[in-house]
Amino acid sequence: MRTVIGVDAGGTSTKALLVDESGRRRGAGRAGPGNPTSAGVDVAADNLAEVALAAWADRDDAALAAPERVVVTAAGVMSADVVAKVAGALASSGLECPVEIVGDALGAYWSAATEASGSVLIVGTGTTAARIGGGDLVRTADGLGWLLGDGGSGFWVGREVVRAAAADIDGHGESTALTALVLAQVGPLPSAEDAGSWRDARLNGLVRWVYARRPVELAAFAPLAFDAAGDAVADGIVAGAVALVLRRMECVVADDGAPIVLTGGLLGEGSPLAEALAQRWPGRCRRAADGTAGAAMLALRRVGVEAGPDELARVRRVSRGSGGAG
Amino acid sequence: MRTVIGVDAGGTSTKALLVDESGRRRGAGRAGPGNPTSAGVDVAADNLAEVALAAWADRDDAALAAPERVVVTAAGVMSADVVAKVAGALASSGLECPVEIVGDALGAYWSAATEASGSVLIVGTGTTAARIGGGDLVRTADGLGWLLGDGGSGFWVGREVVRAAAADIDGHGESTALTALVLAQVGPLPSAEDAGSWRDARLNGLVRWVYARRPVELAAFAPLAFDAAGDAVADGIVAGAVALVLRRMECVVADDGAPIVLTGGLLGEGSPLAEALAQRWPGRCRRAADGTAGAAMLALRRVGVEAGPDELARVRRVSRGSGGAG
Repeated sequence: MRTVIGVDAGGTSTKALLVDESGRRRGAGRAGPGNPTSAGVDVAADNLAEVALAAWADRDDAALAAPERVVVTAAGVMSADVVAKVAGALASSGLECPVEIVGDALGAYWSAATEASGSVLIVGTGTTAARIGGGDLVRTADGLGWLLGDGGSGFWVGREVVRAAAADIDGHGESTALTALVLAQVGPLPSAEDAGSWRDARLNGLVRWVYARRPVELAAFAPLAFDAAGDAVADGIVAGAVALVLRRMECVVADDGAPIVLTGGLLGEGSPLAEALAQRWPGRCRRAADGTAGAAMLALRRVGVEAGPDELARVRRVSRGSGGAG
Repeated sequence: MRTVIGVDAGGTSTKALLVDESGRRRGAGRAGPGNPTSAGVDVAADNLAEVALAAWADRDDAALAAPERVVVTAAGVMSADVVAKVAGALASSGLECPVEIVGDALGAYWSAATEASGSVLIVGTGTTAARIGGGDLVRTADGLGWLLGDGGSGFWVGREVVRAAAADIDGHGESTALTALVLAQVGPLPSAEDAGSWRDARLNGLVRWVYARRPVELAAFAPLAFDAAGDAVADGIVAGAVALVLRRMECVVADDGAPIVLTGGLLGEGSPLAEALAQRWPGRCRRAADGTAGAAMLALRRVGVEAGPDELARVRRVSRGSGGAG
């Protein structure tokens, strides 16, 4: 049996899955942060090599053929540097094997589809829509980050929620149920005694609280827009997010019935965004599985194994527990 | 003749004006940064004391009565700390004189009005609307900073301009004349060879360029929205800014014919925002003068001098050159 390794490089931990050409799990591993943007190139490369070696060491049969490919899926941009470092570390441990790093959009797609063409949508902190053609990424829409893009994303929704609460307290915005929810989530506000007494003390405190944090942390307030369903301001924010996300998907989805793979915190089962997509493209939307599943499926494809729905079903089944026992 | 000193504390330089109760200029000074938010409390306090002493040393008559009050106008929040440090430094140089620091909204208002009630609007990098009552700030609308508020501000317009250009290049936004203007203003883009080849290289470069800067620097792109008048996307951004600014002013302007004082880069003579305000409140809008003028007028008011339009006209006339020869 031929084998490959799929790796999901996350910001806090990294998981790997060793699968054979039938899609069966043969080993798994887990290691520390593998995203070079947040962890740094050297730490990320070390953890990526470590996790692949751990999955290989975990193999259920000592006579198993060595993996022919390691595919890593990760958010953000990866330099060629990282690939070379990981391949070098593997080789020095006796595992001569090509390494490839792909974006999380491609990893998500292959975790839920076996067709060479389709599309994928990530709506987490950011928003990225992507078209897949010939098995690879051929174009993206948005994915430009919180300041330049990410329309309808968790950051976008969360920022609108907090702005709406601030505007309500300040009086230049509508009254909204979001205000109480935001204040409850923030908790005790910092004192702002030296701020202007002509402004509501809660607002002065909220201003301090928000500017003491990184902008993307506002994404944590996104769920409140859904919790407050029925509130006109909250519903307006959600409707705005739906329109922005649909607009981005119109750029990458073709009228060919091809699969549309969804992933990210704002696209959970029954979410307004997921429902709008299902209504716009009936019967085509699927939920992505674990990133290790997509990476392993893509690795099989790269080495010429024709992995179809049966193999995908096996990989998806096992990937749920990947790394857990590794 | 009784005298007072008005100080305008800026992020790069600080100016002071010594005036007598008739509004005549009797001395002026200039010093380094006086805004504690950007320069730090100690540097700001040193420069504020230095500039006031310079204006006093510059007096045109050695027998002039010592100033009875120093009023400083500055953007952002000032701690009581700064006031105590400045007063202490003045006293140790022989100038026993109460010091007061007020926001730039109050300074702007008193640079153009002598009525105890009215309103003021600042649309620069940020947006702050304020109501003046009994001569002081009684309420504000917005002024919450780029992330929580500043609707219709230079940051808001500039960010929309750059987002529109990015969306145009990416294909999820309309085609717009802003794109060429933004790329021309940015100049040579950083290389982004390791970014995805499926995305326009200019867009990859623009993403790098923007995220290498502070968000508020996007305000530099605001003028492009006005330069591109006639372009549907640009006109939409300007219309959005006008609506947001009017909304904030509705919160602070009463139907009493009281003056409305305008200041900031987006409210220049003939700007679409200034014209919309003049149309909404005909005959009530006035341009603010230099911050030293407003600070000096407020200082006169604080010591009980009834300074009317004649005094204001004199202060405004001289303040244009304040600090220049100081």
